Amino acid sequence: MSPSPEPEVLMPDRPKILSSRMVAHSRLFEVESLDLRFSNGAERTYERLVNHGHGAVMVVAVDLDCRVLMIQEYAGGLHEYCLTLPKGLVEPGEDALAAANRELMEETGFGAHHLEPLVDLSLAPGYMDHRMQVVLARGLYPAKLEGDEPEPLIVSWHRLDDILSLLNRDDFHEARAVAALFIARERLIQVGDRGAT
Amino acid sequence: MSPSPEPEVLMPDRPKILSSRMVAHSRLFEVESLDLRFSNGAERTYERLVNHGHGAVMVVAVDLDCRVLMIQEYAGGLHEYCLTLPKGLVEPGEDALAAANRELMEETGFGAHHLEPLVDLSLAPGYMDHRMQVVLARGLYPAKLEGDEPEPLIVSWHRLDDILSLLNRDDFHEARAVAALFIARERLIQVGDRGAT
Repeated sequence: MSPSPEPEVLMPDRPKILSSRMVAHSRLFEVESLDLRFSNGAERTYERLVNHGHGAVMVVAVDLDCRVLMIQEYAGGLHEYCLTLPKGLVEPGEDALAAANRELMEETGFGAHHLEPLVDLSLAPGYMDHRMQVVLARGLYPAKLEGDEPEPLIVSWHRLDDILSLLNRDDFHEARAVAALFIARERLIQVGDRGAT
Repeated sequence: MSPSPEPEVLMPDRPKILSSRMVAHSRLFEVESLDLRFSNGAERTYERLVNHGHGAVMVVAVDLDCRVLMIQEYAGGLHEYCLTLPKGLVEPGEDALAAANRELMEETGFGAHHLEPLVDLSLAPGYMDHRMQVVLARGLYPAKLEGDEPEPLIVSWHRLDDILSLLNRDDFHEARAVAALFIARERLIQVGDRGAT
């Protein structure tokens, strides 16, 4: 952990978990209830979603002109088509970079010669343990793998130096994808790629 | 919706919801199962979390030196303390800007004279309908409201022009907060504030 930029503040000890139990579950979701005692003695009951997977990846795949590959796919949570980045679950025995390349090939029809972990993002740490590894993919080449999508995804290229135009669209709002694009842009500025100022 | 920068692609019709039912619920969470038929005839069953609240807000509160107010709070999903932005649920009858100012006063001890909606972010639209209004707060003044936190939050100031240093910390990874900081920085560059280049 890097040193904190502000004067060090004494962090409290984490709350003690007095008890925990599974209170609801479905095919995909499991809800756990936690009885907590905070270090000041306050007691609360929290609920959280528990994730039993092997992790997840999101891919920022850029070409030499700093254009990024994006997909439009049906999002069941909102019952709408959304613009987002290629992403998916890591399979058992697979590492994050291999999963990123597989998802990229399944969802966009491109593979990548160079894959670089960028950042590990959480979704809603207050009540979920889900995290997602963001991967920067470069050196793209055509390569299609069959995925399990119910219909072909719509693939499009977008300029990484104009994220604000993307944010003006009604169908682009997924926080993880927004964060991933900005971080990728910063990384490409760092390594001196052109077109991303 | 702004015009798409790429050539228009014909979007498929949304899948037809053949049936839906609640398959699990707890105090905080409700899971709905959807039987879907996509426009190409493919059928799938999706699960999603349904949210019955009045919305949520996240606040980027900046001072004249483009420093941003952040909090460290216990995140039950990860059982860790995390660095994040002030945030919370909109209460019945409250609008998003009022909720943002209330949460800011409860969590940081500051109110804001100027509140501006920045962007509306989704969390995981594939399986959740949760969205969050990000609010830029300026014109800060000391004002403390009592919240329902089990313990006082640790409040600290951070430089908005150095988001990458924040990302090097082990406790800063929440995608919504990362996206919100980058978008606020772009907004402050747009309006010509100093210190945010």
